[in-house]
Amino acid sequence: MALPSKVRIVDVGPRDGLQNEKQPVPTATKIELIRRLGAAGLKTIEATAFVSPKWVPQMADNAEVLKAIEKLPDVAYPVLTPNMKGFEAALAAGAKEVAVFGAASEAFSQKNINCSIAESLERFRPIVEAAKAADVRVRGYVSCVLGCPYDGRVLPSAVADVAQALFEMGCYEVSLGDTIGSGTPEAVKDMVDAVAKRGVPLKKIAGHFHDTYGMAAANIYAALQNGVSVFDSSVAGLGGCPYAAGASGNVATEDVVWLLNGLGIDSGIDLDALVDTGAWISRELGREPVSRVARAILAKRAAACA
Amino acid sequence: MALPSKVRIVDVGPRDGLQNEKQPVPTATKIELIRRLGAAGLKTIEATAFVSPKWVPQMADNAEVLKAIEKLPDVAYPVLTPNMKGFEAALAAGAKEVAVFGAASEAFSQKNINCSIAESLERFRPIVEAAKAADVRVRGYVSCVLGCPYDGRVLPSAVADVAQALFEMGCYEVSLGDTIGSGTPEAVKDMVDAVAKRGVPLKKIAGHFHDTYGMAAANIYAALQNGVSVFDSSVAGLGGCPYAAGASGNVATEDVVWLLNGLGIDSGIDLDALVDTGAWISRELGREPVSRVARAILAKRAAACA
Repeated sequence: MALPSKVRIVDVGPRDGLQNEKQPVPTATKIELIRRLGAAGLKTIEATAFVSPKWVPQMADNAEVLKAIEKLPDVAYPVLTPNMKGFEAALAAGAKEVAVFGAASEAFSQKNINCSIAESLERFRPIVEAAKAADVRVRGYVSCVLGCPYDGRVLPSAVADVAQALFEMGCYEVSLGDTIGSGTPEAVKDMVDAVAKRGVPLKKIAGHFHDTYGMAAANIYAALQNGVSVFDSSVAGLGGCPYAAGASGNVATEDVVWLLNGLGIDSGIDLDALVDTGAWISRELGREPVSRVARAILAKRAAACA
Repeated sequence: MALPSKVRIVDVGPRDGLQNEKQPVPTATKIELIRRLGAAGLKTIEATAFVSPKWVPQMADNAEVLKAIEKLPDVAYPVLTPNMKGFEAALAAGAKEVAVFGAASEAFSQKNINCSIAESLERFRPIVEAAKAADVRVRGYVSCVLGCPYDGRVLPSAVADVAQALFEMGCYEVSLGDTIGSGTPEAVKDMVDAVAKRGVPLKKIAGHFHDTYGMAAANIYAALQNGVSVFDSSVAGLGGCPYAAGASGNVATEDVVWLLNGLGIDSGIDLDALVDTGAWISRELGREPVSRVARAILAKRAAACA
């Protein structure tokens, strides 16, 4: 299969990336991060999550963030809404796109969202219905698609079950997440094939890869070869990995853009502006960017100035 | 093309990895590193370099290292010999395999080895002849195959010129090195195709990828898809990148083994023993392993013990 000529990147940094930060990130910083990502050319930016502040205090300013951010006309700002209460709050704050989050592994579903996979799908159904009525788009996430921290192996058919259910329920796109980052390219191919065979069009499938084992670029390349043209990533690799201290989580958007540029695939993103954005948010959080591309480019810039 | 069922990994850590270390590494540590790599299942271990101690003081103990290392019967211990003087010293120290090092970029050749590409090939010819007479195998390196820090783009035909010359001269294997790590998978494919079309059999081509831009696993996957079945890497990602402070250089052997294991490709390497070896040498050098796989596995082990 020929590689796609265009790819859309969904930057999940402001939500998936920041939600595990221990120190509270100022609301103004979140708003500025989203503004800078939009200016760098991102067309989908996951803005926040409407979850209980008891569980995720970092996202307690969700309504404030969603109301205040600059909304570029051609950019979507989805927000995570795990339940009806969250959806209603998101709607009240002006959300035009929401996301629901399921798992392909029973053990992860139980431990992460406290219900079975089937129960989670039933919980999402009224959200999708209400969203439809309110003209709000819904994105579906499936986690643990290439491995589970509790169950180990996850079968492609288990991923296909959940992806198909989310798509048939009305999700406009299903993002398949390698939550623990242990997947490798041939497993990506098998998994994408299994989902596509269940009637989810390739154009409706997104790949969400973590770089915990350094495999993200290889897995994205495999997904591209198998017809996937939407990828989730996080500027500066924000997010880390809650299951492995010191390990990286979300693949850095900078690394994905480098890969796409090298492959001659248009993402519409200005890599230099993106590297600047990653360097800025990393400084705000008091750390180095996890992105290898950002590190290499920043080191080259520093050398050029020396 | 079907992926190969077996892959040989050449660990370049003890030479390419250690040679840029600023602090002198004790000879006993180098010898122990090579022993541990052999015990972990590596079949080719680049042991040292016979270069002027004036230019590379870290390799001044080359003869001592080569003489003292445990030589497993089925393991090759190549040493770098950039010129005839180095080759003679290597031979005197008992080398059974040597390596010569050329570049696909004129500017890099001039700046790195102080001569043109053509001159470098003429310099290697008597080494290869002398090696043949002494029943010593010669491995050829080509650097800058996917980009040059001075010239930028490098054409596949330029790589093919040098690879063909080295192969026809008598090198048993030609290792194609992405020295600055900027390459991406489709460029790997074009480059491997160009070299193979010049008559270098795919089985005689090795891929040498750097992870400076996080692309190494993707590039290895592309090379595998295009028939390459030998890869250079460095335990714990030893080596760094001399052109970009803070950036990584050689892809970590741990990451390559993880990729191969996931693809069901046999490398004969015990990943746990390799991670132990990488953790040990990193401690000896007073740093964290660069390998993402090592970090993730070490963090998992630590969590399991907590």
